[in-house]
Amino acid sequence: MSINLEKYNEWASNRKAYSEGLTAVQLFPKLKMGDRGALASAITLIESSNPSHRTEANALINLCLPYSGNSWRIGITGVPGVGKSTFIEAIGQVLVNQGNRIAVMAIDPSSSISGGSILGDKTRMESLSMREEVFIRPTATGKTLGGVAQHTRETIILCEAAGYNIIFIETVGVGQSETVVHSMVDFFLLLMLSGAGDELQGIKRGIMEMADGILITKADQGNEQAAIHAKRTYQNALHLFTAKDSGWIPKIECISSIEKIALNHPLNWWKSFFNECTSSGYLNHKRKAQDIQFFEESFQQQLSLFMANNEQINNGYKDLQSQVFNGNCSPYEAADKLLKLFTSAHENL
Amino acid sequence: MSINLEKYNEWASNRKAYSEGLTAVQLFPKLKMGDRGALASAITLIESSNPSHRTEANALINLCLPYSGNSWRIGITGVPGVGKSTFIEAIGQVLVNQGNRIAVMAIDPSSSISGGSILGDKTRMESLSMREEVFIRPTATGKTLGGVAQHTRETIILCEAAGYNIIFIETVGVGQSETVVHSMVDFFLLLMLSGAGDELQGIKRGIMEMADGILITKADQGNEQAAIHAKRTYQNALHLFTAKDSGWIPKIECISSIEKIALNHPLNWWKSFFNECTSSGYLNHKRKAQDIQFFEESFQQQLSLFMANNEQINNGYKDLQSQVFNGNCSPYEAADKLLKLFTSAHENL
Repeated sequence: MSINLEKYNEWASNRKAYSEGLTAVQLFPKLKMGDRGALASAITLIESSNPSHRTEANALINLCLPYSGNSWRIGITGVPGVGKSTFIEAIGQVLVNQGNRIAVMAIDPSSSISGGSILGDKTRMESLSMREEVFIRPTATGKTLGGVAQHTRETIILCEAAGYNIIFIETVGVGQSETVVHSMVDFFLLLMLSGAGDELQGIKRGIMEMADGILITKADQGNEQAAIHAKRTYQNALHLFTAKDSGWIPKIECISSIEKIALNHPLNWWKSFFNECTSSGYLNHKRKAQDIQFFEESFQQQLSLFMANNEQINNGYKDLQSQVFNGNCSPYEAADKLLKLFTSAHENL
Repeated sequence: MSINLEKYNEWASNRKAYSEGLTAVQLFPKLKMGDRGALASAITLIESSNPSHRTEANALINLCLPYSGNSWRIGITGVPGVGKSTFIEAIGQVLVNQGNRIAVMAIDPSSSISGGSILGDKTRMESLSMREEVFIRPTATGKTLGGVAQHTRETIILCEAAGYNIIFIETVGVGQSETVVHSMVDFFLLLMLSGAGDELQGIKRGIMEMADGILITKADQGNEQAAIHAKRTYQNALHLFTAKDSGWIPKIECISSIEKIALNHPLNWWKSFFNECTSSGYLNHKRKAQDIQFFEESFQQQLSLFMANNEQINNGYKDLQSQVFNGNCSPYEAADKLLKLFTSAHENL
């Protein structure tokens, strides 16, 4: 996912203007009023790898928390070329015309490994990115998928506080990223191509099980029959899965984003889903469970970082690793010793 | 997997006799001489959840380490009913008659969740378990799959020091257990049924990719044609996978454990595999890499245990968890606070 160059430059210059010196207390009122530059700077702040920025980032998130949560959090996944950006472009126009404000983010596992590029090979979602009601954020940055995930979760809170009521999180269904996205959204949408088996698309059975809705894309230009056939096939597969905790029965339809055919289906799904799950209390329950999970994952990440940055522990770790490698110490005893090194300070309390 | 009742009683009484008071230094010489009771007690010691036993367990493993490693470590997986026990019973007889000593263990993910039963619903491997050269150990115990895995890895070391030169580790291919077994063996064998697609067998593509050899079981009693057909299908699938680091090309054959047909195939595979991989240095390299991985996993487990047992940290954890649940604290800030609680002692050093 990428943004157009003009918007990027606006964003980059705002980022520069805000990124130095502005505190959480200064950023928050601007962000709360929907100031796009303030939102962009806030995201830059939470993505900062400078440990001293973390205190300010936490303060900002705490200021935003009471104003967050009032949105539809929708995950969108599918193989490259399935038409995720084209779908968001098309459905986004409809939603904005209905008075919604939309934030679009992406989790790209390849960029967390390779470093990625802030501008993709193509300029996508061109019309959508020109709308004032739409905030498109390039892929979150972070050294690990876990880091990227944390930043995306925090960005959701910032965007909600800035008044965006529909959050799209796009990911390519590769590796673990779709599981990560699933763990931070309310509704998980899978886009599939017709005429290609799920095996050929590299779609794992587990992804289908996570989906609350499946759209067969590109049901246009003579491709309609293949799309209907694919719909039937996946509909049968969906029956094999166990019922969801939400009580929601996964839906499947064919669409054409380019010819704007059947876009009402996902819109109706979302309305029903959020009505049903809000009144049943499921949505509230699910988000609390997600928060607890994020807390634990976040602690694990921060602990690893602490260990890597603590000279005594890190040296001990490297020494024990080479002892294990040379067969001078069993892996289990080495782990014991590392734990003792880690906790010796606690014992002295 | 289970053992027969007579052997179980022998094992249970030995276990009782040895389990109290015997130290690593006392257990080791008996174990080294191949004393089955000492081996059983040693395994009971390493599986003990009593933290004070851990020092003794580590000492015992360190005594055994110099005498370990001289075995074939073979993982065997497949769906329930594929004939894992029947295969081990058949091939085990051949191997014992050739002068080998065999240890058989199991990793059962259901037992790590449900607590499992020490005796299964059936008495299996009946003839094999009567042989003096064979040591059959019921499923390792542990609260988590990680704990079970650690105990199985340590049991391999004890068995090798006790003179067993072929180690079979059996697991049902469900959840993560096959990945865990793959991470502790040299050769990974997948048993498959003929006449059922891999999808119907619930075999994940990833398991086939891990396999060094595939056996189509029950190629007997009119089932031969279906088995040959299945062999061809899987052979084609194997070609799609990338080459293994070992340089070993995965093999596939049909067998009948009951009619003892084609049992020479896996025997020949193992001979070639261990010859090739020993002389190329791959086996040594792989085991060292496994050890480093175990070290890191083991540390993570012990750290979790330490946190659960430290009152101050555990109370802080519970308090922060409820703050997150009630929306009074962001997951990320809670993680920060927990880390501060954890590391405050280090900062005072």
